[in-house]
Amino acid sequence: MSNNELSTQPYKGVRDFYPTDEFIQRYIFDTWREVVESFGYEAYNASILEPADLYYAKSSQEIVNEQTYQLIDRGGREVVLRPEMTPSVARLVAGQARELGYPLRLYSIPNLFRYERPQRGRLREHWQLNCDLFGDDTLSAEVDIILLAVRLMESFGITQDQFEVKVSSRTLLESYFDKYNLDQEERKEALKLIDRWHKDEAARTQLEELLQSSFDLEPDAQINNLIAQLKELNVNNVTFDRTIARGFDYYTGIVFEITDNHPDNNRALFGGGRYDNLVESFGVESIPVVGFGMGDVTMRDVLETYGLIPDYSPATELCLIANSAEAIGFTFQLAEDLRRGGLRVSCDMTLRKLAKSIKHASKRSVPFVSVIGADEIKSRQLTLKHLDTGEEINSTVEDTVENISDFLLEQ
Amino acid sequence: MSNNELSTQPYKGVRDFYPTDEFIQRYIFDTWREVVESFGYEAYNASILEPADLYYAKSSQEIVNEQTYQLIDRGGREVVLRPEMTPSVARLVAGQARELGYPLRLYSIPNLFRYERPQRGRLREHWQLNCDLFGDDTLSAEVDIILLAVRLMESFGITQDQFEVKVSSRTLLESYFDKYNLDQEERKEALKLIDRWHKDEAARTQLEELLQSSFDLEPDAQINNLIAQLKELNVNNVTFDRTIARGFDYYTGIVFEITDNHPDNNRALFGGGRYDNLVESFGVESIPVVGFGMGDVTMRDVLETYGLIPDYSPATELCLIANSAEAIGFTFQLAEDLRRGGLRVSCDMTLRKLAKSIKHASKRSVPFVSVIGADEIKSRQLTLKHLDTGEEINSTVEDTVENISDFLLEQ
Repeated sequence: MSNNELSTQPYKGVRDFYPTDEFIQRYIFDTWREVVESFGYEAYNASILEPADLYYAKSSQEIVNEQTYQLIDRGGREVVLRPEMTPSVARLVAGQARELGYPLRLYSIPNLFRYERPQRGRLREHWQLNCDLFGDDTLSAEVDIILLAVRLMESFGITQDQFEVKVSSRTLLESYFDKYNLDQEERKEALKLIDRWHKDEAARTQLEELLQSSFDLEPDAQINNLIAQLKELNVNNVTFDRTIARGFDYYTGIVFEITDNHPDNNRALFGGGRYDNLVESFGVESIPVVGFGMGDVTMRDVLETYGLIPDYSPATELCLIANSAEAIGFTFQLAEDLRRGGLRVSCDMTLRKLAKSIKHASKRSVPFVSVIGADEIKSRQLTLKHLDTGEEINSTVEDTVENISDFLLEQ
Repeated sequence: MSNNELSTQPYKGVRDFYPTDEFIQRYIFDTWREVVESFGYEAYNASILEPADLYYAKSSQEIVNEQTYQLIDRGGREVVLRPEMTPSVARLVAGQARELGYPLRLYSIPNLFRYERPQRGRLREHWQLNCDLFGDDTLSAEVDIILLAVRLMESFGITQDQFEVKVSSRTLLESYFDKYNLDQEERKEALKLIDRWHKDEAARTQLEELLQSSFDLEPDAQINNLIAQLKELNVNNVTFDRTIARGFDYYTGIVFEITDNHPDNNRALFGGGRYDNLVESFGVESIPVVGFGMGDVTMRDVLETYGLIPDYSPATELCLIANSAEAIGFTFQLAEDLRRGGLRVSCDMTLRKLAKSIKHASKRSVPFVSVIGADEIKSRQLTLKHLDTGEEINSTVEDTVENISDFLLEQ
């Protein structure tokens, strides 16, 4: 080992995804995509680099000042690795406000960066499903998007008794603050204290000092209506929670979180709400929006807690192992033919000892291997060996696709 | 419009992907995934932030010094937005060198950053399919990976007469340089000049001055063998090209590029080769590798040139439009039932004028709309309106999934 040898470690607080990890990541993303597209959400994307200005106006001040990755580019432009996706999607919609049709449902699965101390459920880089519904200022938009959030949870096999949707409302909070005559600064402070209610006993005391009252918030008619409409759609785990405020300054109406009931996962899985004034910051007419975000790290934690992570299965269904230099041409051609039949086939042309090739296929979790030599070329008969069980299937070349597909389907 | 209004423009040299753009991006990525997985490539991923050290040793010096986005994090660590994926995948494989099984086929579709002047086919951020085959030091690895590159092109409907695979070899070049007694510095210079052969006449003159000879490179037996083996697999557009050198220092054997024959697209679509000494920089045993990268920007340019971009179709197949407050509950429930049948359904509950809702559905390219009111609730009969043709289908609620799916399949 030399002195100037490179480290195999990734940058602190970010993750490497080996095939077995990426498989889980893909399972989560594919499930997200399938459900949100069934609700008519259209995919969009933007660059992870955004002009820093985008966050100064509307994001949480804590995030901009203390938690962003910033850089000045070689042309002197101040740019940021996006800490959240909402400002980007508002920017896109404002950019084509008149060309787009409403209600407009948009989703993306961006990676986001925050500079913070890595801990369970919180890393410096995470991926997040972002769903936003533009152009509906009625409560139906909240019903629609909370229904989607619940169906997303259920699509992973999580049942309604295992999680809770907690709703409150910024308009409700504002009229509550009116009652106690809080000024703008005090309102900001109060929201921050409410947000820390469960984490920090001091925050509770401070909030009650600020209000000069106990924090006796009760739901309004809109919240009760929302809960009732969702109940009609068999969503029975929505409750009013006075401690839900959400960190971002841009929320204007209903806010909500989904939390897992399991004590191991005490962080919010989803967070969202209505933010009707963000799009107009770009100099276009106001467009009402409700949206939410849901992170991959907390999602994976929950799936692990409930034993809902599927077993790894690699792309490769069959590995053909050539046992001599003369077999290589035939093996390449056979792989091509089987792929055309729809099978996912890799080749091992290393001409090592067979036992070694089989051992390595097993390390890669390949379900089937088949050794190709002079006999197989002559007879066009293959022995398909299932590595997990040791079972062997004798198959003509022509029946191989069907034999393997049937076997794997029955698993 | 206020003075401190935010810009709707993205950062310079990066792209926004509205649904119609993201649709094309997804078409390209999904096609890539399907083909590479049929060859048994397994998906991996890593963070876009990498320790800067990773690039100092082995990347092109031009890229590290002049073209990377670098930042110092709040803990003083020097990090880089990755300009290429090869060092990351080498890092990952080195990190589990003994646990992984070989031949190991890995792919990823990362975004990469280079600070350069934006121009056609070259942006500051692009996505790139990266495929690498680890653990086979024989020529079969090159055959396998070039076959994959050709099948990738063909999977988009591009035919072999429309593109060319150009191969050369670093070992061939090294023995050629031996013949002319070039020292290490002169070799580096010569590679750079060869790389610029087609762009820059001065480079040609300089190369011939350096060699004190015309650049009369001829293919060796290995290259001829590679071309012959690919011909056997019906790949007939591979030729030796003495001007192929590839920019990165880490290549050790065969190098190749795929170029489009169309004069509008004069950049390489694929570039790759063998790099057997990169993994050992991480202090593990040497692992032979062949790999390539293929970018989304040039891919999309080529698809546009040949008219191969599919028409946009949104996720939403049917938009249900409630025509009164009383119809909202039924419409939500109907949408849920149709989704369970496999249809992708969105709702418009804005209770605007119907004509406006239909116009907006049309702006979103939604194929079908159906208005839900008292009559539909009573009769459970829907009118499914196809917006493009104006055609109307009368359908029971129960037959709606089948009617729409059949219609869209026939399109």
